[in-house]
Amino acid sequence: MRRPLCFASDYGHADDFAGVCRGVIARIAPDVRVIDVTHGLPERNVLAGALVLRNTLLYMPDRAVHLAVVDPGVGGPRRAVALRSGGDRLFVGPDNGLFTLAADRDGGVEAAHELTNEELWLGPLSATFHGRDIFAPVAARLADGLALDAAGSAIDPDGLTRLELPELRRHRDGLTTTALLVDRFGNVALNLRARQLEAAKFGDTVELVCGDERFLARVARTFASVRPSDIVVLVDSYGQVAIAVNAGSAEEVLGLEPGDEVRLRRLK
Amino acid sequence: MRRPLCFASDYGHADDFAGVCRGVIARIAPDVRVIDVTHGLPERNVLAGALVLRNTLLYMPDRAVHLAVVDPGVGGPRRAVALRSGGDRLFVGPDNGLFTLAADRDGGVEAAHELTNEELWLGPLSATFHGRDIFAPVAARLADGLALDAAGSAIDPDGLTRLELPELRRHRDGLTTTALLVDRFGNVALNLRARQLEAAKFGDTVELVCGDERFLARVARTFASVRPSDIVVLVDSYGQVAIAVNAGSAEEVLGLEPGDEVRLRRLK
Amino acid sequence: MRRPLCFASDYGHADDFAGVCRGVIARIAPDVRVIDVTHGLPERNVLAGALVLRNTLLYMPDRAVHLAVVDPGVGGPRRAVALRSGGDRLFVGPDNGLFTLAADRDGGVEAAHELTNEELWLGPLSATFHGRDIFAPVAARLADGLALDAAGSAIDPDGLTRLELPELRRHRDGLTTTALLVDRFGNVALNLRARQLEAAKFGDTVELVCGDERFLARVARTFASVRPSDIVVLVDSYGQVAIAVNAGSAEEVLGLEPGDEVRLRRLK
Repeated sequence: MRRPLCFASDYGHADDFAGVCRGVIARIAPDVRVIDVTHGLPERNVLAGALVLRNTLLYMPDRAVHLAVVDPGVGGPRRAVALRSGGDRLFVGPDNGLFTLAADRDGGVEAAHELTNEELWLGPLSATFHGRDIFAPVAARLADGLALDAAGSAIDPDGLTRLELPELRRHRDGLTTTALLVDRFGNVALNLRARQLEAAKFGDTVELVCGDERFLARVARTFASVRPSDIVVLVDSYGQVAIAVNAGSAEEVLGLEPGDEVRLRRLK
Repeated sequence: MRRPLCFASDYGHADDFAGVCRGVIARIAPDVRVIDVTHGLPERNVLAGALVLRNTLLYMPDRAVHLAVVDPGVGGPRRAVALRSGGDRLFVGPDNGLFTLAADRDGGVEAAHELTNEELWLGPLSATFHGRDIFAPVAARLADGLALDAAGSAIDPDGLTRLELPELRRHRDGLTTTALLVDRFGNVALNLRARQLEAAKFGDTVELVCGDERFLARVARTFASVRPSDIVVLVDSYGQVAIAVNAGSAEEVLGLEPGDEVRLRRLK
Repeated sequence: MRRPLCFASDYGHADDFAGVCRGVIARIAPDVRVIDVTHGLPERNVLAGALVLRNTLLYMPDRAVHLAVVDPGVGGPRRAVALRSGGDRLFVGPDNGLFTLAADRDGGVEAAHELTNEELWLGPLSATFHGRDIFAPVAARLADGLALDAAGSAIDPDGLTRLELPELRRHRDGLTTTALLVDRFGNVALNLRARQLEAAKFGDTVELVCGDERFLARVARTFASVRPSDIVVLVDSYGQVAIAVNAGSAEEVLGLEPGDEVRLRRLK
């Protein structure tokens, strides 16, 4: 039985990388529906890719094959894998931590296979474009109904590469967290969940410390709750706490990049 | 009976916003064809979005559902709506003026419904991403054959938000108009139609006044009619008068942005 | 019998150019599968477009219709054409050299027709957007099963516009080649094939001369073979020799743009 195929990568839109993979998929599985999740994942940033996959997973069709490529180690020793989650989604790509956060949202990794069945690959195999030569053709076959264990030898799910999220530190007057993702509107998602924000009881207003600078922000439900140019701390549409600026860019106003620390302090 | 679904937004291509909506649509309506019109609409610029929808409308399949999102007021009091035009196209998105210029090209708004049927939405409803949680699922249901009145209570089409286009001013020696849209080639579309340009009888050459600067431009049918780097005033492919530079960018050469005034003067 | 339709252009993703063509195709041929190869081809750069079409061709489905638009001469005297290759692929677009490198990879041009059958076009014909008005509707009809000779009168394949690749110059101590394409990762593809690199016997290390600057580079199989920030000369996934920087951008490090000459010198 066919599965839809969801495709995410850091290939960008300027080049033919994503398009040539779409061509490979259409050659192999002309009747499979392909859903482009995004090809604008931050380049070579496996953690950002893993978070986006986790965030978007349950909005995608059930039983989908999730082809994803953020693969700075292509051509090196990292393994190529296909995984099945408890919820019967499949994941195809590099074993570098890209998938386990997402799979954990869908019942965890129930089966893992290394992509060792070279008959499914395109040849000659390139050293730098396994998306085209290995991941896309294997994902297309799986979407077309191939059984997972035909992709290669079973491996221990506990041996898969896993990413660690940056640590959340709690202080007497608040907490220190990390900027994880910045979107096109300049909203900055933090490594902080809604319930952790609530537990910290900041009230209506919070002080944000970013490097040497301090900012006052409103804790609110949406942009529209504050005046234009005001800073707001809100729970974003994926349940992450985020910093936003109404009709502006929090990234610019606060000078934040992914990986930067942000301290949230209670006002006295 | 199914309808194709045309999807336009200011979500950009770097993030997963458009992709997650495509996932939501595919979950609900796996057999509906989705046509991405563009996700590069200028951010939060409702007028630009409305013009692009109007320009492209009649090139899209008949009976399409037009899902469009440029929604700076998300989470605030603006209504969510679904409209039907005289030509039996459906429009789903915010009631902020995004659709009425397009609907007027297709027989006007014949029926309007506020999206009050929460059973069609995704839950939990986010405060900031109604594209994913309200508009995409409702559009997918309508494309899959749901009747428009199942989307929510009927409202008066005359009460819909409408945008005003900037005014065209006529002078003894020409006219003053406004830059509306700039494309990737730097062509600047004006709030001026072909017949208005003709009526002004500029002849072969016209003076353009942009702020303090003046430029001479040829009035011609296409770029190829003038030399490289020459400025040309032409009727673009959507019937709008536009300023272009052969093998160059009118945006850069004339320093124009959307919203800027441009005066066209007859040469003595 | 239907054919899949592969669509490549320099239309970018900010505007509605590609989307409106997708709409036109869906109106005419609702059951044809459309594969977006890329719309990020360098603007007005016919050679770059021709190389991308050549590189990606054989990864696309068999019997595809290849709609491609990089068309700086639109509205001028350049012809609009549809071609058939020996391998039974069809190509639709401007006669400016965009297709012949690709067709040569697939058995050469076996038949060529000028698009003179105006009944297939959209009207009124614009002067600047033949992608929408001529190429997309003709490609959609061909994908939907129309015979090639219905597109217009047969012309002599030998009269088609052909591009010349920049010349490769050999020296006693190496060779001079040209940067052809730069991708989003900053990898710079050269006008040099794997076997030509081998024949030049550079060994493990080579000196690159770019303008006044010199760089040492490793000749290796992949990024992962060198340390971060090291320059590497490798055979890319399309069989082109390319310059890359591990975890960096060769474009930035070496200051290279398409069209620039690069000299490769053997170390003494």
